[in-house]
Amino acid sequence: MITNADLQRRLDTRTKPQGSLGALETLAIRIGLALDTDTPKFQAPQMFVFAADHGIATDGVSAFPQSVTAQMLLNYLSGGAAINVLARQHGITLRVVDAGVANDIGEHPSLVARAVARSTRNFRTEPAMTSEQCTQALGTGRALAQEALRQGSNALLFGEMGIGNTACASMLLHRRTGWSLEDCVGRGTGLDDIGLARKRDRLAAAAARRPEKLGPIDTMTEFGGFELAMITGALLATADEKCIAVIDGFAVSVAALLAIEIDPRVRNRCIFSHCSAEYAHRKLLAHLDVKPLLDLGMRLGEGTGAAMAWPIIDATARLMTEMASFEAAGVDDRTS
Amino acid sequence: MITNADLQRRLDTRTKPQGSLGALETLAIRIGLALDTDTPKFQAPQMFVFAADHGIATDGVSAFPQSVTAQMLLNYLSGGAAINVLARQHGITLRVVDAGVANDIGEHPSLVARAVARSTRNFRTEPAMTSEQCTQALGTGRALAQEALRQGSNALLFGEMGIGNTACASMLLHRRTGWSLEDCVGRGTGLDDIGLARKRDRLAAAAARRPEKLGPIDTMTEFGGFELAMITGALLATADEKCIAVIDGFAVSVAALLAIEIDPRVRNRCIFSHCSAEYAHRKLLAHLDVKPLLDLGMRLGEGTGAAMAWPIIDATARLMTEMASFEAAGVDDRTS
Repeated sequence: MITNADLQRRLDTRTKPQGSLGALETLAIRIGLALDTDTPKFQAPQMFVFAADHGIATDGVSAFPQSVTAQMLLNYLSGGAAINVLARQHGITLRVVDAGVANDIGEHPSLVARAVARSTRNFRTEPAMTSEQCTQALGTGRALAQEALRQGSNALLFGEMGIGNTACASMLLHRRTGWSLEDCVGRGTGLDDIGLARKRDRLAAAAARRPEKLGPIDTMTEFGGFELAMITGALLATADEKCIAVIDGFAVSVAALLAIEIDPRVRNRCIFSHCSAEYAHRKLLAHLDVKPLLDLGMRLGEGTGAAMAWPIIDATARLMTEMASFEAAGVDDRTS
Repeated sequence: MITNADLQRRLDTRTKPQGSLGALETLAIRIGLALDTDTPKFQAPQMFVFAADHGIATDGVSAFPQSVTAQMLLNYLSGGAAINVLARQHGITLRVVDAGVANDIGEHPSLVARAVARSTRNFRTEPAMTSEQCTQALGTGRALAQEALRQGSNALLFGEMGIGNTACASMLLHRRTGWSLEDCVGRGTGLDDIGLARKRDRLAAAAARRPEKLGPIDTMTEFGGFELAMITGALLATADEKCIAVIDGFAVSVAALLAIEIDPRVRNRCIFSHCSAEYAHRKLLAHLDVKPLLDLGMRLGEGTGAAMAWPIIDATARLMTEMASFEAAGVDDRTS
């Protein structure tokens, strides 16, 4: 087993002033520990974009109509979305998963069809899913991650799409942390003040429906989404493997919060790619005690923050592995 | 001529919530204006690493001995340094320029040998260079940039190497802004408190030697470095061209400050890649009214911050050019 000290020594003997990679030195150590080597090399990175619809969307908690979930899924399948552009740029295999989209999207050769149901139910009035559905979604995510790892990938990236899913993620965050809904709810894809007030109001009603304390899986069942449950399940699969999991924005971070609650070892696999503009994300990242790599005010979802940070993560591994040492390069080390 | 409005319209019709790329939307507009197109595409990016030695280094203003400048130059030429790793990762052509290194480094097929002299003089006791040398360095930088642009590159990245050059850059910053030396001087590659006090003391002595107000080129002549003058010259060449210039850390940002003073049009070509850990960099970036893309506490120089940010810059152009519109993708736009 590689140790922290092994990795620090490797960093400190590379031809650069000690500590001069800043936050990337911490990242290098995290990668080295996760991959159990001081010469890490990423192979076959895979981006999973899980898409699903949400019963709560019919309450008008999004600036976009629910039809957009399926339409964007088709956009991913035909290569026109932001995540397609970034995946192509970086040689990341994109896997588009129907986790439970409401509208029929037909067959498509590259669609990973794993719908648990056509949308969750409206968690303002009833549980979002049954326990069986939650178990199925967690298991599907786990199986997809395991398959990717078995095929030789050691870097899984996670994104999501689902009209209404920041409402769902905010609700999960509220219930897992006990923070007020004011602290947890934001504008999602671009709600105005009236829409934001409505979103908070609907979530307050949902919270009142089932006020008792629940465990993470029951919270997911009551208030979750199929795409978020699949991400949580996929993250759980990483705990025992030599790999990293790149976390996208707010919704994926909430799914990670639940995964870490269920299995704390997941934390050491997670690399938090960026701080999104969605209101509660910064507070959540601070709560998790992580400093994201990027802070560009992005709020596009679909894994775009993770993909944007990917070359920095990959660079960090390459620097560890490919840089010459002071000795090998014949460079004098510092005088003092 | 493409306009700001053209570019905003292109951004707003892509399949993403309006404004959801955050800071990258501002960047997209800067790129579009610089390349004069709403479908930008970067070609043949070139990273210039200018290396030179500094007379002031003999005053003990660096944590590393002067021999390291030449040794690191050789490290670049044999592919073992951080910038080599990053340039390989991103397909950036690396051009290593001897702008005036003290030690003989011999011949090397891929070295761009343009030494003005073997090191500047010690600007604590005399001008760093003659006016003729400054003109030569500016002209060399300009010619190298022009050559790269003529060969079809529309993205120039700039890095530097030179033991003692944060002292030089701090001095230039002090004289161009009027900020106190306390505000301008930092630890460079890792000075301790005693070293930092010595660095400030030596620069105060240098400032007292020539207290009168000077123009930017005379300031470069008195207190500059050959590598910084070449960067300033190269940046001046970008003002009239359809290209971008990616600025690395503190020293390159100071060279950019002078270039912008000489020709304010340079500002619209510059993309500031990162905020380094060198003390005065954050204040300088705020003075220039720019928000860098990365803030990772890097302080490695040699263009590594610029190279680390390059895929984000490239991604921004690709998103503008390759993303589908709402109309083409058949995706409903927002309801409100």
